[in-house]
Amino acid sequence: MPAIREVRLKSRPSGLPVHDNFEVATVDLADPGPGEVQVKNLWMTVDPYMRGRMNDVKSYAPPFQLGKVMDGGAIGQVTASNDPAFNEGDLVQSGFGWREGFNASAKSLQKLDPRDLPPQAFLGVAGMPGLTAYAGLLRIAALKDGDVVFVSGAAGAVGSLVCQIAKAKGHKVIGSAGGSEKVAFLKEIGVDHAIDYKAEKDLTQALLAAAPDGIDVYFDNVGGDHLEAALNAAKLFSRFAICGMISIYNATEPQPGPRNLAMLIGKNIRMEGFIVSHHFDMMPKFIEDLSGWVRDGKVTWKETVFEGIEKAPDAFVGLFKGENLGKMLVKLA
Amino acid sequence: MPAIREVRLKSRPSGLPVHDNFEVATVDLADPGPGEVQVKNLWMTVDPYMRGRMNDVKSYAPPFQLGKVMDGGAIGQVTASNDPAFNEGDLVQSGFGWREGFNASAKSLQKLDPRDLPPQAFLGVAGMPGLTAYAGLLRIAALKDGDVVFVSGAAGAVGSLVCQIAKAKGHKVIGSAGGSEKVAFLKEIGVDHAIDYKAEKDLTQALLAAAPDGIDVYFDNVGGDHLEAALNAAKLFSRFAICGMISIYNATEPQPGPRNLAMLIGKNIRMEGFIVSHHFDMMPKFIEDLSGWVRDGKVTWKETVFEGIEKAPDAFVGLFKGENLGKMLVKLA
Repeated sequence: MPAIREVRLKSRPSGLPVHDNFEVATVDLADPGPGEVQVKNLWMTVDPYMRGRMNDVKSYAPPFQLGKVMDGGAIGQVTASNDPAFNEGDLVQSGFGWREGFNASAKSLQKLDPRDLPPQAFLGVAGMPGLTAYAGLLRIAALKDGDVVFVSGAAGAVGSLVCQIAKAKGHKVIGSAGGSEKVAFLKEIGVDHAIDYKAEKDLTQALLAAAPDGIDVYFDNVGGDHLEAALNAAKLFSRFAICGMISIYNATEPQPGPRNLAMLIGKNIRMEGFIVSHHFDMMPKFIEDLSGWVRDGKVTWKETVFEGIEKAPDAFVGLFKGENLGKMLVKLA
Repeated sequence: MPAIREVRLKSRPSGLPVHDNFEVATVDLADPGPGEVQVKNLWMTVDPYMRGRMNDVKSYAPPFQLGKVMDGGAIGQVTASNDPAFNEGDLVQSGFGWREGFNASAKSLQKLDPRDLPPQAFLGVAGMPGLTAYAGLLRIAALKDGDVVFVSGAAGAVGSLVCQIAKAKGHKVIGSAGGSEKVAFLKEIGVDHAIDYKAEKDLTQALLAAAPDGIDVYFDNVGGDHLEAALNAAKLFSRFAICGMISIYNATEPQPGPRNLAMLIGKNIRMEGFIVSHHFDMMPKFIEDLSGWVRDGKVTWKETVFEGIEKAPDAFVGLFKGENLGKMLVKLA
């Protein structure tokens, strides 16, 4: 593997990212040094949260650097190893960004036991997006018996698992997504009411039609109008897990918050933001639960796959155009 | 007491309430019936939350009715009793609205033991506003050691007690209020940094100057710009107790929420609205703690008093003009 390609941040986007914000470079890969392992990536992930890191602002993760490779997770295979812990052919999980391969110290890699799952599932349903759904619904929103659950971005990697966990636990679930294909998928996974937000004039009305008595839990991937509708439909003591606000990630001006935020008071609503990295302690229990749900046919998932690292920018931009059904992935080999 | 005056809702306000929304009526008071008690009110309360009930919308409490007396709490004295549980001269707490006196069944009254406090304190620091401060800070915001606390509306009935409880527990406290008189009061009660928001161009900057490392707890009485600044200055895992949003109560159009609400996610902020009536279980412990703090000189309070029931509308409207320092009260006798 003498030469590999990688995707770098060429310029910072204003609004929706465009092709010109990225550049594909070819670099030579040296032989792995002492204690190092050489990895050929098979799959890489693009996720909405990466948009925030393209801006040059302080946040929970440092911004991507101009001229440097885009950060992110990948699943790869060991092609050469100078460390006894790894053998050629081992599957590994890593976080070295949008590239076809790399050398890294053995301790920066995690060996992957795929169990009965395809390896790329560990970038989606069995990875960070999966744990995000699990921790957000069960710990942040503190799901309890009888809760009516509303999920926005419900056909995405996180949202579709939130819906299915809630269904597996016997809840009434309302999911919102854009377009008939996504709505069909929501019905397929057993969501009680699927709202096509692109076809609705009044999201509050649509939500209240699906949940006339209101909602107890809102899992927010979208923000904006969806959050406003959820506040309108919220019951007393409802809990909102704020996971993402994809509706505003590409805004060039700060976007106003919901106009009905004062409803928090009278309805005693708890609204809590979270990022998954503070909930890694739940990973073992999550994988155990997930395996059971998959085995029992209670959890399934979709992938939208772009092929070739040169397509990674398209895959990423597609997230904000709603082009993905389930997890957006790039297949590298 | 053959004739008493009462204040009725004449018309619903659009925006800031005005005199013409109220009317003072004189009614004859019959002798108390069997099992009834006659009460002469000494003090009545006006509170910001009452503004919401002047609108004809469904909320946590039903709207006030046109032509009917304004609802609210009062402290009075028994003038005649047909129930063995009450004697002439007893102090009682009641919720029969803006009126000089009334007859009511004995079981709808609460006998008041003022301990060492003036009776009107039970409409303020030792009443609902006091419990609001206590429950909001200790239960909703879950105050813990080392927290830096920011309080808006800090010179009001609720806010000034929040500040003092936090100080009594050894916290760094930043309070915001409008005008030099209120700022002087905040310093008097030991607030570490008093922000005069009327004199500040940039509330975020002022807050970060007072708390360079950020805030852990925000007690919100105001909403709007204050909430936005608090989000900007919030630390990871900070907790916001959303008690009131007086900045928007009189808005005739829905007001946009904070433009930086997405900060909830990266900062893992918990934002929780509440109303005091769900926290009455804390009352005995609150009164016990409060008595200790008052005895030790750690809690004091201010009252702004209007005299005569005909002044009740002025007192009420004054709340939204920032005319009160501490609890706004109307002295009826």
